[in-house]
Amino acid sequence: MSFKALLFGKRLATDEEEEEQIGTLSGVPVLGLDALGSASYGPEAALTVLLPLGTLGLHYVGPLMIAIIVLLIVVYLSYRQTIGAYPSGGGSYTVARENLGVTAGLIGAAALMLDYVLNVAVATSAGVGALVSAVPALLPYTLPLCLLILLLLTLLNLRGVRSAGLALMTPAYAFLACLLVVLGLGAWKTFTHDGAPPPVVQPPTTAATTEMATAWLLCHAFANGCTAMTGVEAVSNGVPAFRQPRTVRARRTLAILIGALVVLLAGIAFLCRAYQITATVPGQQGYQSIVSQVVAAVVGRGPFYYVTLSAVIAVLALSANTSFADFPRLCRILAADGFLPEPFVRRGRRLAFSHGIFVLTGLAGVLLVVFQGVTEGLIPLFAVGALLAFTMSQAGMVAHWRREGGPHARRRLVLNACGALATAATLVVVVVAKFTEGAWISAGLILATLALLRSTQHHHDRLAAETTAAGPLDLSPSPAPLVVVPVRRWDAVAQSGLRFALTLSSEVYAMQVLTGDRPTEDLRECWPDLVEKPARERGIAPPKLVVFRSRYRHLFRPLLRFIVSLARSHPGRQVAVVIPQVVEPRWYHYLLHNHTSAFLRMMLFFQGRQGLVIIEAPWYRSEVPEPDPG
Amino acid sequence: MSFKALLFGKRLATDEEEEEQIGTLSGVPVLGLDALGSASYGPEAALTVLLPLGTLGLHYVGPLMIAIIVLLIVVYLSYRQTIGAYPSGGGSYTVARENLGVTAGLIGAAALMLDYVLNVAVATSAGVGALVSAVPALLPYTLPLCLLILLLLTLLNLRGVRSAGLALMTPAYAFLACLLVVLGLGAWKTFTHDGAPPPVVQPPTTAATTEMATAWLLCHAFANGCTAMTGVEAVSNGVPAFRQPRTVRARRTLAILIGALVVLLAGIAFLCRAYQITATVPGQQGYQSIVSQVVAAVVGRGPFYYVTLSAVIAVLALSANTSFADFPRLCRILAADGFLPEPFVRRGRRLAFSHGIFVLTGLAGVLLVVFQGVTEGLIPLFAVGALLAFTMSQAGMVAHWRREGGPHARRRLVLNACGALATAATLVVVVVAKFTEGAWISAGLILATLALLRSTQHHHDRLAAETTAAGPLDLSPSPAPLVVVPVRRWDAVAQSGLRFALTLSSEVYAMQVLTGDRPTEDLRECWPDLVEKPARERGIAPPKLVVFRSRYRHLFRPLLRFIVSLARSHPGRQVAVVIPQVVEPRWYHYLLHNHTSAFLRMMLFFQGRQGLVIIEAPWYRSEVPEPDPG
Repeated sequence: MSFKALLFGKRLATDEEEEEQIGTLSGVPVLGLDALGSASYGPEAALTVLLPLGTLGLHYVGPLMIAIIVLLIVVYLSYRQTIGAYPSGGGSYTVARENLGVTAGLIGAAALMLDYVLNVAVATSAGVGALVSAVPALLPYTLPLCLLILLLLTLLNLRGVRSAGLALMTPAYAFLACLLVVLGLGAWKTFTHDGAPPPVVQPPTTAATTEMATAWLLCHAFANGCTAMTGVEAVSNGVPAFRQPRTVRARRTLAILIGALVVLLAGIAFLCRAYQITATVPGQQGYQSIVSQVVAAVVGRGPFYYVTLSAVIAVLALSANTSFADFPRLCRILAADGFLPEPFVRRGRRLAFSHGIFVLTGLAGVLLVVFQGVTEGLIPLFAVGALLAFTMSQAGMVAHWRREGGPHARRRLVLNACGALATAATLVVVVVAKFTEGAWISAGLILATLALLRSTQHHHDRLAAETTAAGPLDLSPSPAPLVVVPVRRWDAVAQSGLRFALTLSSEVYAMQVLTGDRPTEDLRECWPDLVEKPARERGIAPPKLVVFRSRYRHLFRPLLRFIVSLARSHPGRQVAVVIPQVVEPRWYHYLLHNHTSAFLRMMLFFQGRQGLVIIEAPWYRSEVPEPDPG
Repeated sequence: MSFKALLFGKRLATDEEEEEQIGTLSGVPVLGLDALGSASYGPEAALTVLLPLGTLGLHYVGPLMIAIIVLLIVVYLSYRQTIGAYPSGGGSYTVARENLGVTAGLIGAAALMLDYVLNVAVATSAGVGALVSAVPALLPYTLPLCLLILLLLTLLNLRGVRSAGLALMTPAYAFLACLLVVLGLGAWKTFTHDGAPPPVVQPPTTAATTEMATAWLLCHAFANGCTAMTGVEAVSNGVPAFRQPRTVRARRTLAILIGALVVLLAGIAFLCRAYQITATVPGQQGYQSIVSQVVAAVVGRGPFYYVTLSAVIAVLALSANTSFADFPRLCRILAADGFLPEPFVRRGRRLAFSHGIFVLTGLAGVLLVVFQGVTEGLIPLFAVGALLAFTMSQAGMVAHWRREGGPHARRRLVLNACGALATAATLVVVVVAKFTEGAWISAGLILATLALLRSTQHHHDRLAAETTAAGPLDLSPSPAPLVVVPVRRWDAVAQSGLRFALTLSSEVYAMQVLTGDRPTEDLRECWPDLVEKPARERGIAPPKLVVFRSRYRHLFRPLLRFIVSLARSHPGRQVAVVIPQVVEPRWYHYLLHNHTSAFLRMMLFFQGRQGLVIIEAPWYRSEVPEPDPG
């Protein structure tokens, strides 16, 4: 087994696709880590905003969480319908494009792309942040740890979606099991102690109340809590990853995810009130995350605490996988429609869309390096994309049911309309609350992505229009081309170039440019003996020699001038430039060459003359052994 | 005037070389800044070693400086003879190679190359170091300042040696004038005060004596002081840069440089004793350079002090110019002999050897970036190269006079032998004294460079032997090539490729590889209509179509296999691969392409099959305007 096969797994044939599809059990970790991870940072994000309220803030935790849970359920029901209506993958792009038009679809796509890229950077660095706050000795390695996790996820996903599912199953289910045990135990203790259970480990004292609750503050807390919503759209985008019956499996996965998320959010909010747990100021001495406080209050700081927190950290760090599962699929659909370059549609050795994976890794890697692995500053940019995509998708479904009709169309339309309204309203709240914090950057980036997608498609369309040729091959006779051979000196390389040129045409020009930088023989002296005589003996028109002495030591300019003037004076004739070239057996030998031919090739291309053909006549070093491809 | 002409100066013709040659007045700054700058750091380096001796050390300053001055004079007289014997540039390489053989020459060359590169990094960072210790606000900009100076010198030297001379004249002569004034004034004060002049500004108190003088310590101080010798060989290497009569001008420049250096070294040593000035610990609070102490003691900290120190800093920072003047010339000679790649012999727009300048800038830039602009750690690597080159050169001159004979040969031989012995002895002292500090790295680098030069020449020799062809063009008739055209789909690009293929040969194969990643039409269905029928109507053999369905989505492998099997089954026939290719008018459009053709080209090259020709049939976008080259 080769090293490549060991690292990436054996190559799969296109018809082996079934092997790489997943069931419900794998679906949860592959598509759901983002949603699950939200359960730990969503409440935290909301409660941090409530910090100035002190203990007063605890009164608002319940209502806020209920609002978010209601929104989640509406979104769940809507997406459930989307999965049914688009069993081949109902991402925001597909739904919005089919029902609302191309621009709406592209807005949805751009919003999702932004969200996926941000998610990778933010999730990885959040996980590593939690890790280094638990093990401060790792602090100097923040960035390397982030990049390591990025590399791990890239590799897992290049191996295919199924390998990723197997690898991520352990942290995902450990996370669920541990937190459910904690919540159950906490709930039981609360009931047996009449709603005021004694904490095993006392949470940090709550900060003093410095402000009163305002509508603005509560809106802000709600907007922050809505980061818990990201990742919910992943299942409906990723339907094609499931085994048949796809719709059933995808719906089951979505139900498990939303169910778990609702239970976790409700449970955490409930225990926060019961144990009087509030947020602590991030980045300050004595900071402790909400989840850590809750677990410590319920079960104390024993082994179970550390197992649970490890699972939370693992899920946070790996929740970027959701982006890896969906971003390449989205790019593939966009590329198939001409909005992205063609390589995005190609499947790699394990049938994953490798190109999208690389691009995602690259973009997230740049973000992580630029922010040195601490991406808190990017969180305000988040959630806008997700909510915008939700809204486009739900609105698209509304149009879908209006057009479609059918027995339950009215009920379904109402449900999706509720979803659209709820997410649109949330989007407005989030944009208003976070506009100055960075939501305007998200808006700008979404518009820029939109422009990029549009202009790519424009380019593809024009190119397609120009190159389209439905008719049969035009074989009207054309004269042999004029051939130009740049020659440096009289050697075997030049000879093989000239020989090939003479097989193409009887009109061959050899051109030598002398710059005087090194003593090179002027070919005019020996041309009659070396070329003209043997050519005449065979009855072949001898190649004409053009020698140019470049007073200013220009090498390419005289050549290009000659070629262009030749082409101008023979309109309609093709001009072929034969570049004799030594091919080295070892790449590093190229460091010793002057790359004249590569330059010349580039400059001829930039001439952009229709009918200019570039021929590289390689002259291979003799030491090359006979190769065997593959 | 174009931007390029403004930045680099107008392009010079090869026969305008005279314009770029320099006289004695420019020769001093162009070739001598390194030697002059040595006057300021040579004594400093020696005195720092004497620190543990306290005031006792001052007894040894005189003898040490006399030893160094004697060495300098011997070296001067030897190099004076070298200039006379090699008026076309008597670098260590040329002299050693002609008289002692190729290996000796290459050792001299490698030693000099190392020294030149180190000199650029060390000199630049020393100058910037002096600047930031004078203006501490600049400390955070150490690296950018170093790179700025590097860029400035690169630009100056790309503009030609004469521009560099004009630009560097001011700092060079200001440095000389100021220091001579200070030394004269100091000497006068010393004599009028019976050898103990009252300092205007009291130098820092001398450290207590903690050690007694040992032979080892004095050797070490001498070895360190010998850094003052670097840069002395520059004139004899750079003789071709002078106007005629070259020998006279070069000798005059050398005499001025050595004279100035001797006066400065002697004067500084004399004033150190008179004013009881010792070194201060570098990098510690209260550090002050020797030159600064001397100037302050003689004239006080008035405006003149600042002018003098500015000139010293400028000369230090710009003394890297000596490397820029000589390194490219050395590379040019080596390249002409085949020890370096060919581009080193080419002259740029101002007749400077641009390639050598770029390489020097690149290597020094890497050193500066790696060491973050503080290259003190590199100083021990220094001096070994220079002294080794001196020794090779002097030893070469001894052999030269032995062979040559002539009226004064005996006297000359003795003089050069003295030089060789003195520098060899110094080299031994330096290597022994500094071996563990880093001289072993120098030795290793010199050997590595030697190996590189040797293997480059080996490669050039083999290539030349393989490609040499003295005879006339072999025109034995060869059959038309077999032509393979990879075709993706039926469009104008493919058609133009096929049309060109049919002008080459009547045996054309079109190959389509289907990977199933996107819906592409199988050409077999339409081939009879689109190609075979029109070909038969014209009486042309129709191109054969080969369609390959790649189950594992390989694109290149089936193509390469087909091409190689075709070549194998037709031994002796050339196989031409016509790659139809869209040429874009804007480079960034290439980001949207899949670069299949570039990949294919590379992989065909690496097949390394003699007789495989690669033809790029470009298909130009129609929006391209008619260009005009130059």
